[in-house]
Amino acid sequence: MNHFKKHILTFSLILTSFVLKAQLTVNKDRLEKRIMDLAQFGIQENGETERVAFSDADIAARQWVISQLNEMGLDTQIDVAGNVIGIRKGSGKTKKNISFGSHIDRVPNGGNYDGCVGSMAALEVLKVLTEQKIKTKHPLEVIIFSNEEGAVMGSRAMAGHLSKTAFPIKNATGYTVAEGIMRLGGDTTKIAEVARKKGDIAAFLELHIEQGGTLEKEKLEIGIVEGIVGLKWWDVEFNGFANHAGTTPMNARKDALLAASQFIIAVNEVANSFDGAQVATVGRISAEPGAPNVIPGKVTTSLEIRDLSSEVIEKVYQEIEKRALEINKASSVEIKFFPLDTTADPAIMDASIQNEIEKSINSLGLSYKSMPSGAGHDAQDMALIAPTGMIFVPSKGGISHSPNEFTSASDMANGANVLLKTILALDKKLD
Amino acid sequence: MNHFKKHILTFSLILTSFVLKAQLTVNKDRLEKRIMDLAQFGIQENGETERVAFSDADIAARQWVISQLNEMGLDTQIDVAGNVIGIRKGSGKTKKNISFGSHIDRVPNGGNYDGCVGSMAALEVLKVLTEQKIKTKHPLEVIIFSNEEGAVMGSRAMAGHLSKTAFPIKNATGYTVAEGIMRLGGDTTKIAEVARKKGDIAAFLELHIEQGGTLEKEKLEIGIVEGIVGLKWWDVEFNGFANHAGTTPMNARKDALLAASQFIIAVNEVANSFDGAQVATVGRISAEPGAPNVIPGKVTTSLEIRDLSSEVIEKVYQEIEKRALEINKASSVEIKFFPLDTTADPAIMDASIQNEIEKSINSLGLSYKSMPSGAGHDAQDMALIAPTGMIFVPSKGGISHSPNEFTSASDMANGANVLLKTILALDKKLD
Repeated sequence: MNHFKKHILTFSLILTSFVLKAQLTVNKDRLEKRIMDLAQFGIQENGETERVAFSDADIAARQWVISQLNEMGLDTQIDVAGNVIGIRKGSGKTKKNISFGSHIDRVPNGGNYDGCVGSMAALEVLKVLTEQKIKTKHPLEVIIFSNEEGAVMGSRAMAGHLSKTAFPIKNATGYTVAEGIMRLGGDTTKIAEVARKKGDIAAFLELHIEQGGTLEKEKLEIGIVEGIVGLKWWDVEFNGFANHAGTTPMNARKDALLAASQFIIAVNEVANSFDGAQVATVGRISAEPGAPNVIPGKVTTSLEIRDLSSEVIEKVYQEIEKRALEINKASSVEIKFFPLDTTADPAIMDASIQNEIEKSINSLGLSYKSMPSGAGHDAQDMALIAPTGMIFVPSKGGISHSPNEFTSASDMANGANVLLKTILALDKKLD
Repeated sequence: MNHFKKHILTFSLILTSFVLKAQLTVNKDRLEKRIMDLAQFGIQENGETERVAFSDADIAARQWVISQLNEMGLDTQIDVAGNVIGIRKGSGKTKKNISFGSHIDRVPNGGNYDGCVGSMAALEVLKVLTEQKIKTKHPLEVIIFSNEEGAVMGSRAMAGHLSKTAFPIKNATGYTVAEGIMRLGGDTTKIAEVARKKGDIAAFLELHIEQGGTLEKEKLEIGIVEGIVGLKWWDVEFNGFANHAGTTPMNARKDALLAASQFIIAVNEVANSFDGAQVATVGRISAEPGAPNVIPGKVTTSLEIRDLSSEVIEKVYQEIEKRALEINKASSVEIKFFPLDTTADPAIMDASIQNEIEKSINSLGLSYKSMPSGAGHDAQDMALIAPTGMIFVPSKGGISHSPNEFTSASDMANGANVLLKTILALDKKLD
């Protein structure tokens, strides 16, 4: 071989390697097929799927995921909180995992995308790395979190703050959290052992559908999550006086539902009265005794406020409280707020991981924006113990937690490619 | 005996007869004891009574009433609609009954007075007439109507317009109307036979608690009912769009509960915007999916409008419909009205009976006013087939359909005395 030929060969090897590198992308069709295969677990006669955490469908789907991980040669286990864990060994240079994943449990009457996209993309990323025989420095850990829709149970346990007060709470399956953990193969008596120490994990990444309409409306392919909004919940009680709707004149009523209606409008007005992305919602209401011919004596509603800043949540709440006092004064209906335990502090995503995600997006030539996540995610708790990043892909029509949820195969593949590239970039960059 | 002595004797006989006549009043203590005895049927551990129509307690209480009527020598029967009927023979001069009565079934979590006062007063009136051996021209008929709280079932059947579409409707006992009629000793297959012809009954009278606060507030002892308001019911549906409360910005929401709240306030404003005694009420509300973290996509409320005039009910409804259209235009939440079958036309009480009631009140030296009844009563349907009158006694605090319902023994006795005197006056006056 002469010098010239040798140069040509070297050049072509470099070119091949470059092309190969440029071609290191997920298989779009295979990813979408995984989503469809997963949707078979819990499918109903009407073609929609029900797979609430702890259900038989949930357990079967998790077993299917484990078998997929085993096929790719990963070491798998179910931790004591019921999380499905798969480890792909690293080269041994570092013992800290780069972790990624999401959840496959669903809300009742939910959709096929939600946490499934991030979970199936995680499998697809591992498949591509296995096919391409790509070895990483760090062990790669895929985590399919247990019961995300039940107050992010699995990730909360992993972050070391799943309270035992959650154990007696039943979900739609009729099982309590404690019973559910046992069903999944966890162990409630050892739950504290699942907590990871801060620093154990080198980085955590989660891909998820946006669940809002921003990316679609602005025709963007990827969202880089800056942070996950915090939320606070209250029960709000309105105590008026129940009386006969036929015999009680309009001016002699103490109508709890009328006061609650004024309150619901006030909540909306207050949330709209500040600049910013804060949201406030009344989603649940009950009126007692609840008969058409009785003036409601007692009404109970929910109140939820979300924002990336705890201070803004507090400011919105104080303004709502002030408005409630005005309604009370005008109507004599007593209004009481009961703060609930279901609160979450805002979680800021790691700046350098956001930066790596942005570089990956640019290398793929995708359009994007940075944005907050209005929904809670497993990444929220993982951010307490590891540098964390989140990647969003568009949701059609901004619809989520509904059978009408949809994300296209291209959008899913874009997200999975960003995930893949970011994992490899972090593997290089991090010790 | 000389002439003078004879005159003295005659005078003293007349005086005695006058005093006796003035003393023909009910026994207040006995009446109150009847109320307390009746409250034993269905009494609970907490001292409150539950006696929904068709329950074992209802059946036992009805048997107790029948035994009381039998003791006083009345002919008793249960008609095919389950009404308890007792007949005290007249002198035979006329075959048309003077009828009176009320009901002893109760709403769930109801009180001891409601229809029980008129029912026990009817027994007390018969007891006094029996004790005093007073014979009437007309047969006196006491009616304890079946299932008044279930859309005035018994009186509706007697007026010939209980629809068979009501048969499958269950009440709080779990029995359907059809099953309940059979339990009470009625016969659903012969239900049409219970209908009375217009003119069969000479007059119908009902004593009832006011169920409002007007008499108490104005310190009056008796109310003469001018008429019973009509009522119309609707279900109102609000269709927005359910979405994630965290990811859907305030300005991208189609919140069905927010629109329903605006509607509830509008209903109140419209009812207050006209002169008159019309009332409009939203007593029932449900929001779907009903989770604190989901924007309600669908809300259903009740709507009830009552007035003595059908035209006013229509006018109020049209104004509410207009306001609903405005809310729809501003919110894009679709609002639909579904009229329900539970309607009642206003029933005007017979003018000459009102006049006789007034004379009875004056002869007893009681204070009174004429007033509409905001609540529906068996008298409403009886007015379709007989000249009908109603007597109200005060309700403490205007409270009704509640364990806190209360009418004093004096107030009950006043009402029973007016009932007694009016029955005797009508017996004289009517053919």
